[in-house]
Amino acid sequence: MTIREEVRKMKLDAPVLAASSAELRNRALLLVKDNLEKHAEEIFAENRKDLARAEETGVAEAVRKRLKFNEKKLQDVTAGLVQLAGLPDPLGKVTLSRELDEGLKLTRISCPIGVIGVIFEARPDALVQISSLCIKSGNCAVLKGGKETALTNRILFGIIRDSVVEAGLPQHSLLQAELHQEIDELLACDDCVDLLIPRGSNAFVRYIMDNTRIPVMGHADGICHIYVDEDASVEKAIPVILDAKTQYTAACNAVETLLVNRKAAPAFLPVLASALKEAGVKLRGTKEVTDMIGGETIEDEKYPEYLDLIISVKLVDDVKEAVEHINRYGSHHTDAILTENDETATYFMQMVDSAGVYRNCSTRFADGFRYGFGAEVGISTSKLHARGPVGLEGLVTYKYLLEGNGDIVGDFASGKRTFHFRDL
Amino acid sequence: MTIREEVRKMKLDAPVLAASSAELRNRALLLVKDNLEKHAEEIFAENRKDLARAEETGVAEAVRKRLKFNEKKLQDVTAGLVQLAGLPDPLGKVTLSRELDEGLKLTRISCPIGVIGVIFEARPDALVQISSLCIKSGNCAVLKGGKETALTNRILFGIIRDSVVEAGLPQHSLLQAELHQEIDELLACDDCVDLLIPRGSNAFVRYIMDNTRIPVMGHADGICHIYVDEDASVEKAIPVILDAKTQYTAACNAVETLLVNRKAAPAFLPVLASALKEAGVKLRGTKEVTDMIGGETIEDEKYPEYLDLIISVKLVDDVKEAVEHINRYGSHHTDAILTENDETATYFMQMVDSAGVYRNCSTRFADGFRYGFGAEVGISTSKLHARGPVGLEGLVTYKYLLEGNGDIVGDFASGKRTFHFRDL
Repeated sequence: MTIREEVRKMKLDAPVLAASSAELRNRALLLVKDNLEKHAEEIFAENRKDLARAEETGVAEAVRKRLKFNEKKLQDVTAGLVQLAGLPDPLGKVTLSRELDEGLKLTRISCPIGVIGVIFEARPDALVQISSLCIKSGNCAVLKGGKETALTNRILFGIIRDSVVEAGLPQHSLLQAELHQEIDELLACDDCVDLLIPRGSNAFVRYIMDNTRIPVMGHADGICHIYVDEDASVEKAIPVILDAKTQYTAACNAVETLLVNRKAAPAFLPVLASALKEAGVKLRGTKEVTDMIGGETIEDEKYPEYLDLIISVKLVDDVKEAVEHINRYGSHHTDAILTENDETATYFMQMVDSAGVYRNCSTRFADGFRYGFGAEVGISTSKLHARGPVGLEGLVTYKYLLEGNGDIVGDFASGKRTFHFRDL
Repeated sequence: MTIREEVRKMKLDAPVLAASSAELRNRALLLVKDNLEKHAEEIFAENRKDLARAEETGVAEAVRKRLKFNEKKLQDVTAGLVQLAGLPDPLGKVTLSRELDEGLKLTRISCPIGVIGVIFEARPDALVQISSLCIKSGNCAVLKGGKETALTNRILFGIIRDSVVEAGLPQHSLLQAELHQEIDELLACDDCVDLLIPRGSNAFVRYIMDNTRIPVMGHADGICHIYVDEDASVEKAIPVILDAKTQYTAACNAVETLLVNRKAAPAFLPVLASALKEAGVKLRGTKEVTDMIGGETIEDEKYPEYLDLIISVKLVDDVKEAVEHINRYGSHHTDAILTENDETATYFMQMVDSAGVYRNCSTRFADGFRYGFGAEVGISTSKLHARGPVGLEGLVTYKYLLEGNGDIVGDFASGKRTFHFRDL
């Protein structure tokens, strides 16, 4: 059966899943947990095959770490499932209740988005997290994971789908896409898929956006900045910069560009240079910077996303220039100021137009788990719907219910009746 | 200056407008009101020129009514401005406040979307409403109105922009596009426009969506349904159907397709047929329907949006079949059930996947003013961000602020510190 045929069936099941009780959805999550534990050895065996093949084909060790699904990873995901089952139901929340006129009652109620397609990197734990977030929020999901963990994905998905059906949720609640070409099939399903969440490289996310009419929630890049103000504490600044740059260089919330106040530069730059050198971070700076502390000189105004142990450094006159640079050249992901001056900080936090605006802490905190959302399906740099780490709240929409007794608009247009708008 | 150059300036002013106080934004709205009243005669004079030209060029009378801007329309828009100035500030609302760990505080706060482009039909009152909603919500706006009211738009826009600047808001808060070709220029500004709201025909909205990378909030069509259940009250049903079809046929919330329960059909259809005939509504039905009450027979399953005094009628076995038809062929705008049966109604309200799901009332209620939102910038059939009539709430997003004291992720990764997630 083609993806399209499968997704059409899913679309019919979507309202049934949406109307299912929280109890049923939570029971499904706990069944997933039980069955993952029950089949642990089989999962580990499949994962070992994936890992062996990855090693054969020369996948780097750093990447292979993410492919691994062992006892520790299983414990993490099952703990996550128990936590998720315990969270309040995101569906059916009444966010507006208003009598428009006698006997005409308007209610706004949260409901699932419907059918969501998630395309994600080769990380087996991500498969479990994403599918469980979708089930908890009553959304049908089409899942396409990275090919490097194909065998692990297949067994995990089978266990999850069987558990969900066993719990009494609809047959077509979840679907796995296994072939790369199925991504293009999915992109064409704009009449039955409500949202796509691509995770991966910029080029990949951009490809998705340019090749579908389905709304896309994704981030195109993460060029995060740290601005070192003239009133920054150097003792705090160095560890924060090193953490933001080196704690996990491949992450979208790693810092890429450092803006340093020109007045602070003479004292700060030499300290920075030696700290970066010690941490193995390559410095690229404007001529003004490299004249002072060496490194490669850069000319262009637009600094790249390195995702590596490299950082751009530029001097600015003041917080105003820092904000202008960030709003113009940044990716509106996460940007931080280091300062002990409250007034300067307030200006920065207000004026920077990013999903996360931080003071005196590392940009690496931008993450659903670290925000206490339990898990995330992705981080959005779009300003619409969901911004920043996207957890359960980002997976619901709402609908307006209006209940009357034969009410017609003509009576209000003619002045026979008037709205009284009483919130209930 | 090109639209692009103007919008780039606007982008720089956007954070300043976003940071402006509610007092300043409300003062601007009241200044707009004063200045519109002060220049009333000049506005009316320009509008008379637009109307004369419309008559000359053969614009239909029904359309010319919408072009008119007279004393009555002025009163409506100034009353709207006073009401809007009195509404609570949608900005700076704290929707999450959480201590992640000792001294590391996360806050989620509402903020404007940024720069919004609105392309709307020839209705001078819409220009005032849209610009005032954008100012109240702290958004910069590029406005392109219909060419039939070009002179009225120009004078209204001049007064509004001058008032906004006089009140102390940024110079580039508002921009008017006057030429049709400027729409394409605007569509290319995906690096400085955050949202487009096109209002108009399906073909036009679809054109916008297919020719820009900017997120679009719009509705592609409005194929609204009414399902007449076997437990419907005929006395309520006929007035509701007539209101939904005839009160304003050109509206997207007018009913286009009637689904009638097969058991109710023998008694209901003849009453319906005579009521439609009396109201001048042309009936198109499946063969089964036209065999019983005449009218044009339709074969295709997908019934069109008529925006005219025409209605499609089809029989269904039960509420389940009605829901399936609506979810499959509808436009997820607004759909209603007529029934006295609570259980059937609950099923329908839960299962229909539309922005508005109604019971025993006209679909024509789907409107920002009738929901008590003051005004609307449009009605969204998208499920993301805003759904249904879009008022102030739909024009804001949020950002996460994180304040620390030199906190680094490394300390949490190593286990030296742990998150305690305490909501404040």
